Amino acid sequence: MGRPATPKLSVGKIATAALKLVDAQGEFTMGEIAAALSVRPSSLYNHVTGKTEIIEAMRARVFAEQPFQQRETAWEDALRALLRHYRDAFARHPKLIPMLTAHTVSSPDVVRMYDDIATVLSDAGIPTGRLLDVITVLDSFVIGSALDVAAPDQVWDKTQARTPVLVAAIEAAGQGRPRADRAFELGLDLLLTALRR
Amino acid sequence: MGRPATPKLSVGKIATAALKLVDAQGEFTMGEIAAALSVRPSSLYNHVTGKTEIIEAMRARVFAEQPFQQRETAWEDALRALLRHYRDAFARHPKLIPMLTAHTVSSPDVVRMYDDIATVLSDAGIPTGRLLDVITVLDSFVIGSALDVAAPDQVWDKTQARTPVLVAAIEAAGQGRPRADRAFELGLDLLLTALRR
Repeated sequence: MGRPATPKLSVGKIATAALKLVDAQGEFTMGEIAAALSVRPSSLYNHVTGKTEIIEAMRARVFAEQPFQQRETAWEDALRALLRHYRDAFARHPKLIPMLTAHTVSSPDVVRMYDDIATVLSDAGIPTGRLLDVITVLDSFVIGSALDVAAPDQVWDKTQARTPVLVAAIEAAGQGRPRADRAFELGLDLLLTALRR
Repeated sequence: MGRPATPKLSVGKIATAALKLVDAQGEFTMGEIAAALSVRPSSLYNHVTGKTEIIEAMRARVFAEQPFQQRETAWEDALRALLRHYRDAFARHPKLIPMLTAHTVSSPDVVRMYDDIATVLSDAGIPTGRLLDVITVLDSFVIGSALDVAAPDQVWDKTQARTPVLVAAIEAAGQGRPRADRAFELGLDLLLTALRR
């Protein structure tokens, strides 16, 4: 007598279920994941130690969704390509962002990205004592820009603006992904220009 | 015969209840707000048209929690003070951030802040066609920095770092609020320096 085939539980399956919950509602519980996968909550603990490990698995998963191939050799181009990739990865999961920023980055594949960023910046002459501050600035800009990708077409309600300069600026800015992309590239220009000095 | 006094429902009370829910779980429903305030969901609609209006009330509320007094006269100092205030307002409610960035900014008091930022930048010589891109860059940096304030003491797990330069950078960076504040000020320096050119 054969049993009905039950797909094996894995860290990957658990992370996928958790990501679906977070994308929908901004949070997840072990009980919700168990229900989504039709297993008992206790079965999850054969694969993960708890929420923190699942959050790290989601972080790794999000970066791996669209593999990054380093093709640039000039440090600025390499850094831009890396930060663009990072923004796009986070932009697909805006509700996951506050969960990721609230937890220590420990996923080896993601820490490796920071190894790359640190190496590029160090080679460009940023001293060690300032390196993590610069990385944090780039990180904050990228994360905010990922949320900006998910912004509505109308970011600011111009009927509420009181100054003609803000009305004109809103009208000139356009909307949608081209608006978000143009602002992101400007921010990279400004930050990298300032770092180059 | 007197009735037991029941506190009157208001937009402010509804926003406070919604903010408590979002701070705890990253989301809210009209049903949850009604339950928290011990009223029927239908009663809420005497005060607000729905979730969007509540989100705008939360946005206004968060900025008003710590009133901002403009005291600086030099444009750069005024802008820095404004952006610091903005970061601190959002840093108190990290789970609210993706909800706010996913909705049009229409709260009059908050749009007024953008009127101020637009005026300051325009006076500093930024052309109208570029104004909203610059505002978006500053916005993204501030929002990412607000999430960084809520980061754990150990932002990166240095035991996962592969390069000595990242290990040394993590060790040099320190932790907690002083680390976050130092990175935020560096980012303001870099962006405003680049804008001044």
